[in-house]
Amino acid sequence: MRVLYHLPLSPYARKVRLVLAEKRLPFELRLEKAWERRPEYLELNPAGTVPTMVEDNGLVIPDSCVICEYLDEAYPDSSLMGRTLAERIEVRRLTAWFDGKFAQEVTNNLYGEKYLRRLTRRGNPDPSSIRTGFTALRYHLDYIAWLAENRKWLAGASLSLADFAAAAHLSTLDFLGEVDWTISPQAKEWYARIKSRPSFRGVLADRVPGTTPPDHYADLDF
Amino acid sequence: MRVLYHLPLSPYARKVRLVLAEKRLPFELRLEKAWERRPEYLELNPAGTVPTMVEDNGLVIPDSCVICEYLDEAYPDSSLMGRTLAERIEVRRLTAWFDGKFAQEVTNNLYGEKYLRRLTRRGNPDPSSIRTGFTALRYHLDYIAWLAENRKWLAGASLSLADFAAAAHLSTLDFLGEVDWTISPQAKEWYARIKSRPSFRGVLADRVPGTTPPDHYADLDF
Repeated sequence: MRVLYHLPLSPYARKVRLVLAEKRLPFELRLEKAWERRPEYLELNPAGTVPTMVEDNGLVIPDSCVICEYLDEAYPDSSLMGRTLAERIEVRRLTAWFDGKFAQEVTNNLYGEKYLRRLTRRGNPDPSSIRTGFTALRYHLDYIAWLAENRKWLAGASLSLADFAAAAHLSTLDFLGEVDWTISPQAKEWYARIKSRPSFRGVLADRVPGTTPPDHYADLDF
Repeated sequence: MRVLYHLPLSPYARKVRLVLAEKRLPFELRLEKAWERRPEYLELNPAGTVPTMVEDNGLVIPDSCVICEYLDEAYPDSSLMGRTLAERIEVRRLTAWFDGKFAQEVTNNLYGEKYLRRLTRRGNPDPSSIRTGFTALRYHLDYIAWLAENRKWLAGASLSLADFAAAAHLSTLDFLGEVDWTISPQAKEWYARIKSRPSFRGVLADRVPGTTPPDHYADLDF
């Protein structure tokens, strides 16, 4: 069976889980406490990050972006990367936006500072990072709302990797109770739509020791 | 004519310039002081980063990774992404390594702290960042040496985007005189090989106001 080394709340691992589920590719999850830098894991992925995927045939694929590009090339049915060159540019641009800019401005501040820092015993969160994270989250929810108002899905007419990248980050923050959905009804409507897909069930069933998600986390009519 | 908005020392813009030149695709460079956040530029690329490419037909492509994926799909002759699935995984893994890990540990500390901070008048560099950058550079040169000893090019038997990503970061640091090539003769041998390619000429001819590169910068037998 295909194996995905992950952390339950890693948005990058969640993105890959969503894509695998959407493509109906079975996989087994293995918890990898990346910060422990386990030598056997570093051999699979010298960067030491999660996720890393290992295919049945032994092919090792590290890095969520590399995995998603690979999955669309190896299993092109129900492609999530767009069809035309212009569509593919927009899917990749927005995926890079969420995994780059959103991650740096929001996820790293609210998941990284507030949650990961505690988990890895690196001291108390920096209050200014948390303020920066919440301010940036409002601005990003507005951008998602603008995209969702003007398009069926974030990158255009079709569901794509861009939706899963965005939803993965937001689902992690939502698990931690950090998202005030009243800020943007349009962003909430888009998130409710993607959250209702069968591919989302695994992510909504996640539970981690010491943190209880808010009641609305797994509620499809939140 | 195809336009590339860039900064001369941006490693991401350099990577795209190298790929365009390697594929013999003509382009015109336009200087974009990204930190000025020019509204017309933000319309092309809301993330506000360089590079952004505009094709003759009006197609706008932001983000160096998106541009490089696009270029290989739109102009598949002399592909730089590898042929088999396994080769493509390794090319993308190493490209992500240099644009992610190397950038964060080395480039952001030595180019970001020492050069960009001064250029954008954000105060003095942080000495501890500079120390961290030099320590990480040694470790990364060792990794490049290990790859270059075991393979013809960094990702395998063929020249690929991984070589250009690595060379782009190192060329920026070399311009600023930050690379002590005596640390690793194997890394130097690989860099001399890629630097001798005709596609590298544009990057070696760069000059920026206020900074003179060391004599060896454009010397092919350095």
